[in-house]
Amino acid sequence: MNNSERPIGIFDSGLGGLTVFKELRALLPGEDLIYFGDTARVPYGTKSPEAVRSFSKEIASFLLKKKIKLLIVACNTASSLALDEIRKLSDVPVQGVIQPGAEAALKAAPPGGRVLVIGTSATVNSRAYSRALAASGAGVKVTEKACPLFVPLVEEGWCSKPAALMAAREYLSGFRGKADVLILGCTHYPLLKRIIARVMGPRSRIVDSARAAARSAKAALEARGLLNRARFGSSAFLVSDAPERFSALALKLLKIKTGKVAVKRF
Amino acid sequence: MNNSERPIGIFDSGLGGLTVFKELRALLPGEDLIYFGDTARVPYGTKSPEAVRSFSKEIASFLLKKKIKLLIVACNTASSLALDEIRKLSDVPVQGVIQPGAEAALKAAPPGGRVLVIGTSATVNSRAYSRALAASGAGVKVTEKACPLFVPLVEEGWCSKPAALMAAREYLSGFRGKADVLILGCTHYPLLKRIIARVMGPRSRIVDSARAAARSAKAALEARGLLNRARFGSSAFLVSDAPERFSALALKLLKIKTGKVAVKRF
Repeated sequence: MNNSERPIGIFDSGLGGLTVFKELRALLPGEDLIYFGDTARVPYGTKSPEAVRSFSKEIASFLLKKKIKLLIVACNTASSLALDEIRKLSDVPVQGVIQPGAEAALKAAPPGGRVLVIGTSATVNSRAYSRALAASGAGVKVTEKACPLFVPLVEEGWCSKPAALMAAREYLSGFRGKADVLILGCTHYPLLKRIIARVMGPRSRIVDSARAAARSAKAALEARGLLNRARFGSSAFLVSDAPERFSALALKLLKIKTGKVAVKRF
Repeated sequence: MNNSERPIGIFDSGLGGLTVFKELRALLPGEDLIYFGDTARVPYGTKSPEAVRSFSKEIASFLLKKKIKLLIVACNTASSLALDEIRKLSDVPVQGVIQPGAEAALKAAPPGGRVLVIGTSATVNSRAYSRALAASGAGVKVTEKACPLFVPLVEEGWCSKPAALMAAREYLSGFRGKADVLILGCTHYPLLKRIIARVMGPRSRIVDSARAAARSAKAALEARGLLNRARFGSSAFLVSDAPERFSALALKLLKIKTGKVAVKRF
């Protein structure tokens, strides 16, 4: 098999990474994509760094055996805590979502502007976005805020219910008008974008790390001459538990028809 | 060691079972209690029966090695899906929370009354409460309703926030005035009792399966002559991940001082 014909592996703690999958599918229609959701152990965002690293390495090893040409860690929590360790395991490029999200935020922010990063507790505690933004030398002012209930709200399909708006107000109303850019630092959060924008007000530009990650993956493949020029790529989905539930939510929340979802238990 | 001096083992998917622990500690001050919370894999309520059974058996085997005299499955999801299989592993009595909760509801309900059971998706899908209530022959009318966001709301410590009230309205306002008895069929839910009562209205009596389970455990030990008459029992806490977070939430939500929490990874 020609290297460019090999599939791309993508993983997340659950279904949030499907926002990255969807952007990738639109940008790269010819690629074969293999998506893994760790539905037996979701969510990652409230768990310890050790647990997140251990789960992430297990999944990366599993996907690497499938002869992928690129591994995308489509989970901010795993990207912020486990990327270096996954890279040590891998003989192909590994891409997370933090760096692309930080770069997109810097493009959107005015010089010395205020950037608010929202994510899971584990992502925020890792301060991975603060480090990535500081490393640029752009001098933006960064605040990070954990919003742990957003993932369960999305997983319940309540993206426009009053409870979601109340949760967004509880977490974010103190930041209204006080951020030039808001980074959606969790791949579930694009599904709550409308409610988040309503609470933040019109002055904050919202940067979606899922979209930024998909664009960055395309650029990485192009740079290496690894783009697949096929007309239609295949999509395969695997989870560690409850495949029917995953399939139903993928359709309900993202209009993705998964077909049969395979199960790989750890 | 005299059999009555052996400890009681208790487990839950996370910290919800601490509502049972707290009732037990008050009812049985002389008992040594060992609590295990499966914080690496919490929540159980959205996972498959196979996953819940596999996790529950692992934990039961671990606790049985500690020479306990009674094992309490302080998780409705595990009780509804894994109790029979845990009993096969165990040489000591195993008690769940479903049967005691159902019995308490039958005492509270008028003849032929309407019982509403709320719980996780997995508990509701198992129909374990419906079966237990039907087996009594009391002829009550049973409805079960899954409320998946209640566990994450409690784990976030938002027991009296507007988002919790909105979630309770979304799930329960259609049942206001239409249930004689409401069973809190998840050990997290007693922490939301005030909000749930507000939405249900004054005509519904609320039955707490955590309290019923603790009373039933006391009766089981009494019947077997296994009560520990010591003045003060010890309390030990173990989790599968993130012990500091568990300890902080136990204090915040239930005013339980855990001391050092040990970690056992699976």
